Amino acid sequence: MPSDTAPRSGRRGAGRDAKRAARLAHAIDSVPFITRQLAPFEVLSEEGLALIEHNADTVLEEIGIDFKGDPEALDLWRAAGADVQGERVRFPRGLCRGLIQQHAPREYIQHARNPARSVTIGGRNTVFAPNYGSPFVRDLDGGRRYGTVEDFRNFVKLTYASPWLHHSGGTICEPVDLPVNKRHYDMLYAHMRWSDKPFMGSVTAPERAQDSVNMAQLLFGDNWIDPASGRPRTVMTSLINANSPLTWDATMLGALKVYARANQANLTTPFILAGAMSPVTVAGTCTVTLAEALSGMAFAQLVNPGAPVILGSFASSISMQSGAPTFGTPEPSLVLYAMAALARRLGVPFRSGGALCASKVADAQAAYESANTMNATLMGGVNFVLHAAGWLEGGLAIGYEKFVMDCDQAGMWHAFMNGVDLTASGQAMDAIREVGPGSHFLGCAHTQANFETAFFRSNLADNNSVEQWEAEGAQDMPVRANAIWKRALREYEPPPIDPAIDEALLDYMARGRAAVPDSDI
Amino acid sequence: MPSDTAPRSGRRGAGRDAKRAARLAHAIDSVPFITRQLAPFEVLSEEGLALIEHNADTVLEEIGIDFKGDPEALDLWRAAGADVQGERVRFPRGLCRGLIQQHAPREYIQHARNPARSVTIGGRNTVFAPNYGSPFVRDLDGGRRYGTVEDFRNFVKLTYASPWLHHSGGTICEPVDLPVNKRHYDMLYAHMRWSDKPFMGSVTAPERAQDSVNMAQLLFGDNWIDPASGRPRTVMTSLINANSPLTWDATMLGALKVYARANQANLTTPFILAGAMSPVTVAGTCTVTLAEALSGMAFAQLVNPGAPVILGSFASSISMQSGAPTFGTPEPSLVLYAMAALARRLGVPFRSGGALCASKVADAQAAYESANTMNATLMGGVNFVLHAAGWLEGGLAIGYEKFVMDCDQAGMWHAFMNGVDLTASGQAMDAIREVGPGSHFLGCAHTQANFETAFFRSNLADNNSVEQWEAEGAQDMPVRANAIWKRALREYEPPPIDPAIDEALLDYMARGRAAVPDSDI
Repeated sequence: MPSDTAPRSGRRGAGRDAKRAARLAHAIDSVPFITRQLAPFEVLSEEGLALIEHNADTVLEEIGIDFKGDPEALDLWRAAGADVQGERVRFPRGLCRGLIQQHAPREYIQHARNPARSVTIGGRNTVFAPNYGSPFVRDLDGGRRYGTVEDFRNFVKLTYASPWLHHSGGTICEPVDLPVNKRHYDMLYAHMRWSDKPFMGSVTAPERAQDSVNMAQLLFGDNWIDPASGRPRTVMTSLINANSPLTWDATMLGALKVYARANQANLTTPFILAGAMSPVTVAGTCTVTLAEALSGMAFAQLVNPGAPVILGSFASSISMQSGAPTFGTPEPSLVLYAMAALARRLGVPFRSGGALCASKVADAQAAYESANTMNATLMGGVNFVLHAAGWLEGGLAIGYEKFVMDCDQAGMWHAFMNGVDLTASGQAMDAIREVGPGSHFLGCAHTQANFETAFFRSNLADNNSVEQWEAEGAQDMPVRANAIWKRALREYEPPPIDPAIDEALLDYMARGRAAVPDSDI
Repeated sequence: MPSDTAPRSGRRGAGRDAKRAARLAHAIDSVPFITRQLAPFEVLSEEGLALIEHNADTVLEEIGIDFKGDPEALDLWRAAGADVQGERVRFPRGLCRGLIQQHAPREYIQHARNPARSVTIGGRNTVFAPNYGSPFVRDLDGGRRYGTVEDFRNFVKLTYASPWLHHSGGTICEPVDLPVNKRHYDMLYAHMRWSDKPFMGSVTAPERAQDSVNMAQLLFGDNWIDPASGRPRTVMTSLINANSPLTWDATMLGALKVYARANQANLTTPFILAGAMSPVTVAGTCTVTLAEALSGMAFAQLVNPGAPVILGSFASSISMQSGAPTFGTPEPSLVLYAMAALARRLGVPFRSGGALCASKVADAQAAYESANTMNATLMGGVNFVLHAAGWLEGGLAIGYEKFVMDCDQAGMWHAFMNGVDLTASGQAMDAIREVGPGSHFLGCAHTQANFETAFFRSNLADNNSVEQWEAEGAQDMPVRANAIWKRALREYEPPPIDPAIDEALLDYMARGRAAVPDSDI
């Protein structure tokens, strides 16, 4: 965000600020997403991964998955060769995997209305999107309260302004002040109007998914259809959660079908609190997750072969005393690593992780848990990272200060994933020869030539002496973050939009709102 | 620590507490250190690592290392075939590596006076030791102040009490209230008397290193000599920092020689703030670190072939504006991963990482930075982790609350490094069959049989609802940690010691203190 480029105190020269801002602005333009130079970390051998695949196939074959309230889904499965009893679908071994590997793209481009913001999802790429789905918001000034559409717009703007978030996300927070059956209009419009980054569609009802597709078609206009394929370009990636264990419900199936038919991407995610929706083990949780995700992604291929899908895994362990979800703990990280490897073997993009935590506030607990989860996210090779910024309280709240803190961390991952520079300049043998024993490198030619870009610079972290830190008010990280998001909102400038498109969107929404009464479901 | 086993509130039943305490006590006995089941993460290819090795050999051959104020060292190097000009030593390619690979053990046991606490350093093992070297301490009650010998003893006791720290460390904080030339007695005695875990010796002067050896000999008595080899058992690992770049000073060389001759382990660590003591690049920093460490470890082999050594790497990047060190940032993590791989190729134990941070207080910054560093530490395969708990403010201070927080994280790494259980119980197919679609796993037989040990349990993290958290006082993590360390000190019970040994130690110290006047150098 622009304020990421600004110093906290006014002491530094304006010239340096401008130079720094220019450098970061360049970084924004040049990095629409991370392309990792490092191989992912593996926690299971080939044999271990094959065992979980075998077990998932056993679950699909012997136990099956419930496809609820969607007779069309049952017909499609029957026609594909599955065994359908009531709403229970059992799959011959390899059926789901085969459908996915035959049709689903290994990676896909999600187009943004600003082509420079388009993201490639899958392969060696990582895309960061903000928090999703929180009914509450928290900031240092107002504490915790229900989210509003103003909060929603604020977070769209903050996401747009951050150089380290690549994707505008979806339901960043719930705009609880708007009727449930109409708030998707305002959320979609905010993503489309106040950002030019790629975004997610509504999934809370099939007709809202259709509104998402219709508005996206208005937004992209002549660019909606790819002339090469004759199909719509993929411009949305939307979140289809399983009703774990082993169940897809009618709402999610309905939204999935709308998106798949329009060639939009479905992020099919088993949402699992291990111990409740899956066994209390890592391998068992992976088995349930894989079985569910396979069935969802394969179903998308039945609806429209070739429609993009992501294998999603949201896994937390629960406290076996209270039932509360826990984050940043060892077992969810192990699940993430294993699932990432399973997605690579299957050959589809993978979604998991984020800056997850159980803490209610942006304290040390929040940071330990978020950092642990983000380390697994990046080291494991996640392609699409929902909840990369803002998450608090098991997802019940999004925090403004937490958002700023997580963005800073997201920036660091850009530097880490570039790996080690082994060019002659990276080796720096000239510098070592120039300085020799017992001196220092601060003034040597190589340092002078490289210090501007040598190390990742956070302007949220305070690395000063304790004396200087105290002189500046002994501010902890959330206090510093508070100033940063406020400044980012003050300095926000919207991206340009064609007025005719804007009018068409506003008109579409006005007609949609007028067509039905407000409703809270 | 015992209080880790206790709930924060008094609401839970005493029976459950006792059960939990018993379970954790068992864990303490059974895990004297971590043996990882996961392969380390690699950031460089074989070619990249070989390039840095080649460059380090070039530094050793062409630039050389200064061995200051130690004519004996120069004689030893001359006799070994090095080119010695003044105090500058230049090494034929491969000389240092050859000495190390011919003589130094790939791993070694550091014996504790309680044999159950002995640690194996090297290989697939990871040993956690607390913070080292801070002149200041901080807690929520008293803020920041100079460390005292009482603080020192407190941290020895807290380390002893933690099930997740394997090693008592060395100068956990500086007892600034004692004269510089005598405080080593009190530090050594605290480790020997108030803990039974392995510890580190004094390095601030050769005669203090000798005092450390003499007191260790008293402590171990009949067990000092290994009858199989006729040599002293290794019972101390001590920290020998290089004076980077490319310099060893007389104090450190003197201490190293004392320890090597007594078959005690030397942790030879280039202490590098990249950009000041090394180039502003990862590869350049690794080259300087490797060259220095090779020369130090090889020197120990000249002094006493076979004496245990550890390749140490302490690397921070510095803020190129202020010169302040930064932690938990991408570049030091990359250095850590690369150096860990270089140590494995060389075939010696590796020390790096810890819960490092620049933050002055135990806030979110401290936690993000510490967690990032600890992730690299564990994923990279560090064998000896100094600063695993307590570090604040770039090492200038140790925090009581930070210590408790870091211990909790250290516990989580024990669970993570066990990897994924792929036994029949780990696969949990019976549970998945029993529960089926649309139900939950909370009450199933497999969950009931496994929930006690299924997931790592923190009792510092608060995973409760916001309503319950507010009802309990809306305590952030440091506030909860404050209660935990106080309880741990209240409940501390010293390990038993032979009164004759205790008396011999007290007598040795009394004579040493009386022999010379107090001095502040």
